Amino acid sequence: MEQHLVGVDAGGTNIRMGIVTPDGRILKKTQYPMDMSRGGLAMMDELTSRIQGFIREGTPGVLSENRIGIGIAGPVDFKKGVLIAPPNLPDLHEFPLREFFRERISPPIAIENDANAFTLGEGWKGAARGCLHYCGITLGTGVGGGVVVSGKILHGADGMGGEVGHMALNPEGPLCGCGGRGCLEVYASGNGIRRMTLEAIEKGEGKGILHKSKEDLPKITSEDVFEAAQNGDETALKVFNEMGRYLGLGLVNLVNLFNPERIVIGGKVSRAWDYFIGSATEVVYQRAMKGQREKVKIVRAGCGDDAGILGAAYAALKLE
Amino acid sequence: MEQHLVGVDAGGTNIRMGIVTPDGRILKKTQYPMDMSRGGLAMMDELTSRIQGFIREGTPGVLSENRIGIGIAGPVDFKKGVLIAPPNLPDLHEFPLREFFRERISPPIAIENDANAFTLGEGWKGAARGCLHYCGITLGTGVGGGVVVSGKILHGADGMGGEVGHMALNPEGPLCGCGGRGCLEVYASGNGIRRMTLEAIEKGEGKGILHKSKEDLPKITSEDVFEAAQNGDETALKVFNEMGRYLGLGLVNLVNLFNPERIVIGGKVSRAWDYFIGSATEVVYQRAMKGQREKVKIVRAGCGDDAGILGAAYAALKLE
Repeated sequence: MEQHLVGVDAGGTNIRMGIVTPDGRILKKTQYPMDMSRGGLAMMDELTSRIQGFIREGTPGVLSENRIGIGIAGPVDFKKGVLIAPPNLPDLHEFPLREFFRERISPPIAIENDANAFTLGEGWKGAARGCLHYCGITLGTGVGGGVVVSGKILHGADGMGGEVGHMALNPEGPLCGCGGRGCLEVYASGNGIRRMTLEAIEKGEGKGILHKSKEDLPKITSEDVFEAAQNGDETALKVFNEMGRYLGLGLVNLVNLFNPERIVIGGKVSRAWDYFIGSATEVVYQRAMKGQREKVKIVRAGCGDDAGILGAAYAALKLE
Repeated sequence: MEQHLVGVDAGGTNIRMGIVTPDGRILKKTQYPMDMSRGGLAMMDELTSRIQGFIREGTPGVLSENRIGIGIAGPVDFKKGVLIAPPNLPDLHEFPLREFFRERISPPIAIENDANAFTLGEGWKGAARGCLHYCGITLGTGVGGGVVVSGKILHGADGMGGEVGHMALNPEGPLCGCGGRGCLEVYASGNGIRRMTLEAIEKGEGKGILHKSKEDLPKITSEDVFEAAQNGDETALKVFNEMGRYLGLGLVNLVNLFNPERIVIGGKVSRAWDYFIGSATEVVYQRAMKGQREKVKIVRAGCGDDAGILGAAYAALKLE
């Protein structure tokens, strides 16, 4: 009987689950929104019953042969198997993830940070296939990421390594939710794009498509800015150009520190690829170290929404 | 007959060599200055004959059992075993190091970047003893460093990873020799301290000990600034404070990316420890990610000038 993997991508707003074969085909998948407003513990209970239900209907008869991987939003202390200070869910601080799932779901379980799962998925079946040394970056509401060194995800001492969204790029930059200033996340995330756009409008720019009434301004999303860029709005194009410049500085650091073969960029903000990748790669070519900058490939993610499911399944496959 | 290791620390200005036991005792060591003005190829020839002479007199009768490790200044492409664009030695660009030494010196040879050798030495016998995840930084004329992940030095795809001196910390900062801007090296190196001091003097500061005649100003060294700080000179103290702030930003990035147990700081500029470590650790505590910043230990190197010899020997010991 074939062994199956269950990959769970428990991001901040959506949960995705898939039954995955050991060679990386997704046989079946499902998705549902996660209501964070009810608190973290209620979420964990719902996640558990959803996983149990999915396994029961998904792979009748082979339950005991399954392995489960869960990619979860927020930093995980891998030594202790607990969540650390997940943003917006204070009741899950130091939550004993590994024990919680082990008690409720029988098969062996791998737990991974969701951005690490994205990175592993892209290495297994996506744009970093075959690479031993690569980085993954997810541009979403925030900026996440992971780093693979010699074929293994970099966890560091407590499993909190690879926080590429919190590289400090500008000492006088805007405050970041992490407590730092000028982190990659304050520029290259959806929130960052929104902030930069509102700042430009305050300065009197953005007369074009972005020129909404004063009451509507706070409602601007990074999606609006993306649409405006597609319609040629100058302010929107300028914002993406600036965002790309900072993304480029982050890429410079990754290149100089990790000497990766590739850097894979995904996440919903990466839909605006054409509007930021030019200035990003220009900065890499100007500023990263000679000998590395010519070789590294900056590529767009290849697995779409499936990267997290695949990466979580891969973590389960490699569970020792 | 006991196996011995030979550790060679071929830095930019001095060559140090030692006979090292497999448990890390240095039985004998020697040191001589390297004259770079004659060009890289002449240096390589001299290095070879010095190593051969040292082995002959150092460990009579056990030559064939020896292993040699060489830590060499400049980035090394480990796949090909060649030097890449060493600064100031253009005739050594793409120099086939591994072949060169293999033809001339009989025992198995490990080749490592000198900052990586420092890092390995500190992990073996110094301030990062027992750590599986740690970073090393050498504050010298420039800033070098290395990163150990799960007990192994991070080489990346071509052996050029771990260039901590070239993290981009300030997009509008001074130009760096690497082609970037605002790298850690332009602030935390001897050259950086000199530059910041001269800039302060140009602005009319530095009326105290640093107030030399106009003709003497260009001769100011980071040593002078260190002495001035020891004598309480305000400008010198301010420069080290600022240098510490940027060093702190670099530490933030290392903490967030690598989640290390420790970061070990050495090199001759680290003699000014008391004058920069306060502002550096303050930045780490303010800006690095919660859960990591409380745990990471920022420590002073423990092997003194021997770190490079020990690390090169360690690389030879671990040669596969």
